[in-house]
Amino acid sequence: MGKFCFGVDLGGTTVKIGLFDPEGMVLEKWEIPTRKDGNGSKILPDIAEAILNKTAEKKIAAEDVIGVGIGVPGPVDERGVVHRAVNLGWDVIDINETLGGLLNMPVRAGNDANVAALGEMWCGGGKGCTNMVLATLGTGVGGGIIVNGKMVTGATGAGGEIGHIHIEDNEPEACGCGNHGCLEQYASATGVVRLAERKLAASAQDSVLRTAKAEGRLSAKAVFDAVKAGDTLACEVAEQFGDYLGKGFAAIAGVVNPEVFVLGGGVSKAGEILCEYVSKYYTKYVFHGAADAQFKLATLGNDAGIYGAAKLVLE
Amino acid sequence: MGKFCFGVDLGGTTVKIGLFDPEGMVLEKWEIPTRKDGNGSKILPDIAEAILNKTAEKKIAAEDVIGVGIGVPGPVDERGVVHRAVNLGWDVIDINETLGGLLNMPVRAGNDANVAALGEMWCGGGKGCTNMVLATLGTGVGGGIIVNGKMVTGATGAGGEIGHIHIEDNEPEACGCGNHGCLEQYASATGVVRLAERKLAASAQDSVLRTAKAEGRLSAKAVFDAVKAGDTLACEVAEQFGDYLGKGFAAIAGVVNPEVFVLGGGVSKAGEILCEYVSKYYTKYVFHGAADAQFKLATLGNDAGIYGAAKLVLE
Repeated sequence: MGKFCFGVDLGGTTVKIGLFDPEGMVLEKWEIPTRKDGNGSKILPDIAEAILNKTAEKKIAAEDVIGVGIGVPGPVDERGVVHRAVNLGWDVIDINETLGGLLNMPVRAGNDANVAALGEMWCGGGKGCTNMVLATLGTGVGGGIIVNGKMVTGATGAGGEIGHIHIEDNEPEACGCGNHGCLEQYASATGVVRLAERKLAASAQDSVLRTAKAEGRLSAKAVFDAVKAGDTLACEVAEQFGDYLGKGFAAIAGVVNPEVFVLGGGVSKAGEILCEYVSKYYTKYVFHGAADAQFKLATLGNDAGIYGAAKLVLE
Repeated sequence: MGKFCFGVDLGGTTVKIGLFDPEGMVLEKWEIPTRKDGNGSKILPDIAEAILNKTAEKKIAAEDVIGVGIGVPGPVDERGVVHRAVNLGWDVIDINETLGGLLNMPVRAGNDANVAALGEMWCGGGKGCTNMVLATLGTGVGGGIIVNGKMVTGATGAGGEIGHIHIEDNEPEACGCGNHGCLEQYASATGVVRLAERKLAASAQDSVLRTAKAEGRLSAKAVFDAVKAGDTLACEVAEQFGDYLGKGFAAIAGVVNPEVFVLGGGVSKAGEILCEYVSKYYTKYVFHGAADAQFKLATLGNDAGIYGAAKLVLE
């Protein structure tokens, strides 16, 4: 086994790259822009150049590089083939072969959300676990499932798409995916705001969130700040949020029975209080045989992707 | 690699045993009674004796036996340790070590529902697939999840307990597990009967099921026979059944994104019509990225357990 590996997190605006040792220590990390012109044809050559420059600069011999892992914003199958990454202008690309050919190093690609889960398992909130679920509560809800230490990619790269689990039969508004009642409609940052707005509209109850809304600063953060300050209406919103996410997690537990659910994304900045609301409702809905799961916060933030990508080539 | 392996399906009344070649051909199969007295302490010695007698009878040398796989009715962890199999009188037993010690052969144990899924993947309805879900629709609803060709055991052996995924918020009656609104309450044989009884009670609509109920022969089979005969009320029950199971399968797809859902258990004897009702609602609820799944009937019947158990030691 060599001494170094690279983890690449390919985003729509920037590419994050990390140089790691096999124990999960980041030796260096940096970013390059994602050049999307020409249907994204420059992206992989740019990444290859950045990595080769780094090995030259650090005087790292090719045989000392275990490999390069990369997380991609789109469905990636088990063989490392991306099937349409709309944000990058990509159609079907075999990343392992294409980037591997440019680098003359072993390359392994995965979906970015799944790769982030692998990172949190390796060095973050799920450290020490081999069966884990990462829920990324951001603008939407993404996820990554780890079973026996490995990412669940699924038959068509849709493994871990937990944001679109159907969770509410009586939802009049459509989710971005076109369905009604997806987990994402309640547990994302925008979902929490929507729950708060509905509650504000449905009652005349006093709440700091009413002022926040009037001043155009109603956000998931504002809701959970108000919860911490004891605002009754905000607490009711948090109960709803916990009910939906707890119900979704209980369904996931009926499939893969994880040791730990790790909460990441912007909403998770609310802190431990989130875990309390979710675990309360998880316990209500879950099958007793899977009741023992823990709830933890993600710890790697925006670096989860480079960690997980590096881990991909260490498996 | 040797030339033979054994698959054992340990049930509450009988133990089924199969002698297999590594390609999945059953060379012989037979049963012995499950002796549960003495807290089930005779069960493993009985199985060992049966297998050793068979190898003697067939003049199979110990080194030609690849191993013995066994499916157990209870939660079994990754190391082959059973944690309370109530039906057998067992507390905590390390099957791999105990049975392996009696046989002097490699032993691998798994939960019976998960093992049956492995069997259906190897030689049954999921043949040729590596990402599969088996739903066993019997008195209850059991399940087994296969990801990349391997069983998903879960952190506490509750992987694939799909019967207790929460699927209905407005269920007044409790499930056997104590929760309300579990998939099992609608998609099991008893669940289908319950849906039919509710529909009969809620209307005065003419239906052959009304006669069946009066004569004490209302069953899941009666419901689907009536569906095939075009009975309107029975068709409405089938729609409800399809809606609940399709919704449950869509949730599962948001986690593991399988290639195929295989339907087994008594209810599946209704045949292909079942797949039609389920796929209709699956399509309604599922995230588009996971929409391509197939729906198939299990083909191994009561032999799925011995097939899957044998496959356990071939991995």
